Amino acid sequence: MSRSSVFPVQVQFGDCDPAGIVFFPNFSRWMDAASLHFFMSCGIPPWRELVKTTGIVGTPLLEIHTKFFKPATYGETIEVHTSIAEWRDKVFIQRHEVRRGADLLCEGLETRAFVVRPEGHPDRIKAIPIPADIKARCA
Amino acid sequence: MSRSSVFPVQVQFGDCDPAGIVFFPNFSRWMDAASLHFFMSCGIPPWRELVKTTGIVGTPLLEIHTKFFKPATYGETIEVHTSIAEWRDKVFIQRHEVRRGADLLCEGLETRAFVVRPEGHPDRIKAIPIPADIKARCA
Amino acid sequence: MSRSSVFPVQVQFGDCDPAGIVFFPNFSRWMDAASLHFFMSCGIPPWRELVKTTGIVGTPLLEIHTKFFKPATYGETIEVHTSIAEWRDKVFIQRHEVRRGADLLCEGLETRAFVVRPEGHPDRIKAIPIPADIKARCA
Amino acid sequence: MSRSSVFPVQVQFGDCDPAGIVFFPNFSRWMDAASLHFFMSCGIPPWRELVKTTGIVGTPLLEIHTKFFKPATYGETIEVHTSIAEWRDKVFIQRHEVRRGADLLCEGLETRAFVVRPEGHPDRIKAIPIPADIKARCA
Repeated sequence: MSRSSVFPVQVQFGDCDPAGIVFFPNFSRWMDAASLHFFMSCGIPPWRELVKTTGIVGTPLLEIHTKFFKPATYGETIEVHTSIAEWRDKVFIQRHEVRRGADLLCEGLETRAFVVRPEGHPDRIKAIPIPADIKARCA
Repeated sequence: MSRSSVFPVQVQFGDCDPAGIVFFPNFSRWMDAASLHFFMSCGIPPWRELVKTTGIVGTPLLEIHTKFFKPATYGETIEVHTSIAEWRDKVFIQRHEVRRGADLLCEGLETRAFVVRPEGHPDRIKAIPIPADIKARCA
Repeated sequence: MSRSSVFPVQVQFGDCDPAGIVFFPNFSRWMDAASLHFFMSCGIPPWRELVKTTGIVGTPLLEIHTKFFKPATYGETIEVHTSIAEWRDKVFIQRHEVRRGADLLCEGLETRAFVVRPEGHPDRIKAIPIPADIKARCA
Repeated sequence: MSRSSVFPVQVQFGDCDPAGIVFFPNFSRWMDAASLHFFMSCGIPPWRELVKTTGIVGTPLLEIHTKFFKPATYGETIEVHTSIAEWRDKVFIQRHEVRRGADLLCEGLETRAFVVRPEGHPDRIKAIPIPADIKARCA
């Protein structure tokens, strides 16, 4: 079985909209935080450290697919459960389940790539093959 | 051909992350704004007005599926082009294309429902069949 | 000595801007969360519960005054230390110190009021005198 | 009389909180956008361009002081009117008035500095004297 991590979130008043429930882009924000949390829990340094040794500046999204089952509101504590669903050559798919106790609130698949800034193009980013050592640490 | 709307966005410094590009949940935020903008451009009042006559409190998301093709950064003006891809009984699918000039930056499908607060349950929401008059206005 | 509460925050990648440091409105967001956290730690229910018995819908801001001393970045854990600096008739001043270990990162004073929706005006809010029981619980 | 700029904002559903009004940190977000908009309207390039010729990476906040007079809600268009209230040696004070038509919604003073990354310390930032050419363009 593969590694997984749990990222707790305390839902805030300001995370909720006039309908009184979490404004959905915040779930994407928390899944993004959970994505980095997953890597850090596997011993990978934060991007601003990693960039110095590997040139990697982050893992931007190529695709997200999220299903929302139940709303959440402020004052609640929820958890993002994160694992790697699939490693491909240049991309990987991260799976996030957001739970409140036994309830599954939403479920998201993220397709991401490790990116560097190409030499001579500090304004651009490009995907690199998944680094073997990172993959090994997260297996 | 069906109706469509164009929602312009000026990307701000604070919308961007340490990689210097738009932090992706902001695209979801702008698509959400473009969703409401679409309905208002069809002559539907904002939810806080609509609730008084119809009980409708909004159109929360059931599912989002977004593909990211190119990044954007601050100082740029981008546009969200929005239309209805499909009407079903209780849900509808909105399609958003985010463009910078001729460039397609990202593309999102949102599955949404019109919801009301069930009588006696002011804390809950439930989906209702797509109101015929709203559908007619948006066709 | 008066009550105080501590609200921990794990700074996320998406909380930071292209300069690599926390985008400052997030400090206001965390102080707002810390404000509610303070009241809940004093035994006050969340606003959506309180509204049912008291009509109180929240404690919107009248004024904020924040000084920023040191930046923070993602991967760091910081704490918001919150107390009531002053109770007046219809407003109160909350004081927040954001710390990373021994470092004081920023310091904010918030002037807030408890508000209700006036009868017959569900779209408006107005300040009420500080409820004595709330004040007593927070002393 | 000094220069001023006007930055329009269309308030979105997701900018509002469960009380149905703008979540206040968004006003700080819009003032920040208006701050950069002011400089760009004076002919200053965006920071990611300016950094290449001057090393300047932005104008982080040292202090904000905002008074909130009236709430705003989604579907409304508001304007941030921005000017320089004072230039000092290493800091300047920007003044923002947020208006909806003739109504003054809130008023903010921001104390900011131009910062660079000190040589050999790419992780740190430090304030520099206000560049004379930038000051001249904004006068």
